[in-house]
Amino acid sequence: MQTPVIDFINTRHDTFIDELKTLLAIPSVSALPEHAGDVRRCAEWCRDELIRIGMQRAEINETPGHPIVYAEWLGAPGGKTVLFYGHYDVQPVDPIDLWQTPPFEATVRDGALFARGSADDKGQVFMHFKALEAYLKTVGALPVNFKILLEGEEEVGSKNLDEFIASHKDLLAADVVLISDTAMFERGVPSICYGLRGLSYFQIDLRGSNTDLHSGQFGGGVVNPAMALANMLTQLKDRSGRIRIPGFYDDVVDLTEAERAEFKKLPFNEKRWARELGAPKLFGETGYSTLERITARPTVEINGLLSGFTGEGAKTVLPAVAMAKVSMRLVPNQHPEKIGDLFEAYIRDIAPKSVELKLTRMHGGKAWKASLDNPYVQAAGRAIEFGFGKSPVYTREGGSIPVVATFQDILGLPSVLFGVGLPDDRIHAPNEKLDLDNFQRGIVASAKLYEEFSTIA
Amino acid sequence: MQTPVIDFINTRHDTFIDELKTLLAIPSVSALPEHAGDVRRCAEWCRDELIRIGMQRAEINETPGHPIVYAEWLGAPGGKTVLFYGHYDVQPVDPIDLWQTPPFEATVRDGALFARGSADDKGQVFMHFKALEAYLKTVGALPVNFKILLEGEEEVGSKNLDEFIASHKDLLAADVVLISDTAMFERGVPSICYGLRGLSYFQIDLRGSNTDLHSGQFGGGVVNPAMALANMLTQLKDRSGRIRIPGFYDDVVDLTEAERAEFKKLPFNEKRWARELGAPKLFGETGYSTLERITARPTVEINGLLSGFTGEGAKTVLPAVAMAKVSMRLVPNQHPEKIGDLFEAYIRDIAPKSVELKLTRMHGGKAWKASLDNPYVQAAGRAIEFGFGKSPVYTREGGSIPVVATFQDILGLPSVLFGVGLPDDRIHAPNEKLDLDNFQRGIVASAKLYEEFSTIA
Repeated sequence: MQTPVIDFINTRHDTFIDELKTLLAIPSVSALPEHAGDVRRCAEWCRDELIRIGMQRAEINETPGHPIVYAEWLGAPGGKTVLFYGHYDVQPVDPIDLWQTPPFEATVRDGALFARGSADDKGQVFMHFKALEAYLKTVGALPVNFKILLEGEEEVGSKNLDEFIASHKDLLAADVVLISDTAMFERGVPSICYGLRGLSYFQIDLRGSNTDLHSGQFGGGVVNPAMALANMLTQLKDRSGRIRIPGFYDDVVDLTEAERAEFKKLPFNEKRWARELGAPKLFGETGYSTLERITARPTVEINGLLSGFTGEGAKTVLPAVAMAKVSMRLVPNQHPEKIGDLFEAYIRDIAPKSVELKLTRMHGGKAWKASLDNPYVQAAGRAIEFGFGKSPVYTREGGSIPVVATFQDILGLPSVLFGVGLPDDRIHAPNEKLDLDNFQRGIVASAKLYEEFSTIA
Repeated sequence: MQTPVIDFINTRHDTFIDELKTLLAIPSVSALPEHAGDVRRCAEWCRDELIRIGMQRAEINETPGHPIVYAEWLGAPGGKTVLFYGHYDVQPVDPIDLWQTPPFEATVRDGALFARGSADDKGQVFMHFKALEAYLKTVGALPVNFKILLEGEEEVGSKNLDEFIASHKDLLAADVVLISDTAMFERGVPSICYGLRGLSYFQIDLRGSNTDLHSGQFGGGVVNPAMALANMLTQLKDRSGRIRIPGFYDDVVDLTEAERAEFKKLPFNEKRWARELGAPKLFGETGYSTLERITARPTVEINGLLSGFTGEGAKTVLPAVAMAKVSMRLVPNQHPEKIGDLFEAYIRDIAPKSVELKLTRMHGGKAWKASLDNPYVQAAGRAIEFGFGKSPVYTREGGSIPVVATFQDILGLPSVLFGVGLPDDRIHAPNEKLDLDNFQRGIVASAKLYEEFSTIA
């Protein structure tokens, strides 16, 4: 890689962090309607920054929801074309009181930058902005054609992305999709992710009466919807951690012996992992290792519960309603629509007649698995070795990036998942952070990656 | 009863309502620390009003919590002494958006006064203030000596009341306790309550990890505390509605055939009751009628549930903690302390090792049952017939007034429970109301009741 590019990156560490802080200061929480203006402001900030660093074109595209940012540099005719995908929206920040520093005032502490979105995904998107800037501001050109697609609805199910991609196939035509929205296996173990889980997310609302009741006057005579909900949720998994929804496992391709052998090779210490999480004791599906459970096996989780009086003190209310948010993580070959149908049928079946049930399907996405001998995946391995000084391990992640399946299905493109997050980055939780050494090495590796892509036959 | 007393009451209906509105405007929510000042202000308002209507003495007594108001009129030496007990604190008002008119701006609608505390218990306390005022402002004397004890912590377990009563035995010496904090069996069916349920209230907190986690990255590998909580709560009752806590029923005195026959005589229409509540289908302990279930059988209820993300939208969080508020309603002979111990032991037993459990005992109170041939109960029957034009039915209530057991245990006094609430008054819930016809008739009946008490040998 050309020296000026490397030099540009290595001499601007602090500047890059300051710039990133500006991006992280925008509370682009896509799930909360009151932040819709902030989400738009963040899209505009990205567009302006992309023009500033030298992209030939950058624009806001309206959708029925939050806008999509598109940018491009097409100055390498005949060369490879990379389609970079990322998201500029972030998760909500509650419980806000558990943040050590304000979520939208990025703060450097212990070699990391703490802020909502620092790792997921603004920091990793910005890493590419800086790698691109390094080429454009020094040698004045990129080694490949480069298209950028940033959405503002990743944290709420990418509702409008598939439609945008399907209706902009020519605009988005490329050779490979590049995504940096995943984590390294652990600190010092750079990784390429070759598998992701899918998602099917529901809200369950139960109503037992038309108003909250006095638990003394009515307790024992009417259904308690919170109790009915607890009963129903209990029936989702058996004591061995196996999901009880009929048909749920029908399409699951079980792990091969070879895959299970790969899992065993990874440096994973269950005891240390549990200790770091503060988990008194691990729990999961019988017959699988923790690593398999969290990346290659499906699960069902309660994401939220609400009923009755939850303030300080003792209110003797018999709640009228109870709510649960429940989501399933899916593995390759499980289809979110089909799983959603099975879930609905089961929930309707186990709901007692004493409650009124409302089921809301929030969003879903397919799982994904890549081929390890794909030349772009191999190129990414070399770039990572250049940036981080060691060859990567190949891992699977338990999270969902549904767009990876979309790129495969609609554009026919393979994806390379090159992430520099760390497992303890606390994405979606209080005190999210980005490791600054990984950020810096990631910029170098990204710049190298574009060059490696350009050499593929 | 003397004509001027009756006339005073019958010509001041609107004035009484306006005065009551002033009392109801004070948000004396004892459960919420931010309302501590309002609770005190309410105590002061009651003291001032009691002096204004002509009581000889009225004062604020400090406690470690909210203050206790004491007042007296002792101008009938050698006569009977009544100790009236009531509470001036109210329940929280959430969910606030379900109130048709603001909870602390009392509003007349359809012959009722809508406000938090209108029925429970400010309106019923104020009914006695007005009956007393009628005597004191017309004939200048009461037919009995009258002591008033108003507490500000009834809705949070009367934490400091027992201690106050125990240390003021002489001050509170009397012949009978009078309480108006219950409801009539139904509109047009005046009632005397001869039984109450007890209470044992807990908060359960579970922790599965030291921070909220991403449900994709961690789901399937660690315990979900909301799921663990659902599992535990499900084990509180079996499918027949019977409580599964070992030993829970040991001290329950089952209903006699005679008592069950009395229950059958009461005008109770289960279908109409369910329809009015908006309950799709009733549920309760097998082998008992709804009326028995809600007044004379113990129950366990979830009063509140909270875990993870409960806002709008879909947040893929694996919660670190989950909380439930759970309370048991007890029947005569069950002791709250013993039941609390059984509950704790059971919860600790069924909590999985994968979570950290914290149990908080919030408050409790004993159940109570009166003798129907007590002369004070009989006197109340006559007064009610005078005020409401028909003789009362004898009922039991499912709610808890622990102080009734306290008066029996510490002062050796029988209690007369004469309430003018209605079953659909929505106490503890949005749109609490007080029927204004009952309020007016209740003032007359109260005035008559003092006279009836004075005639007992």
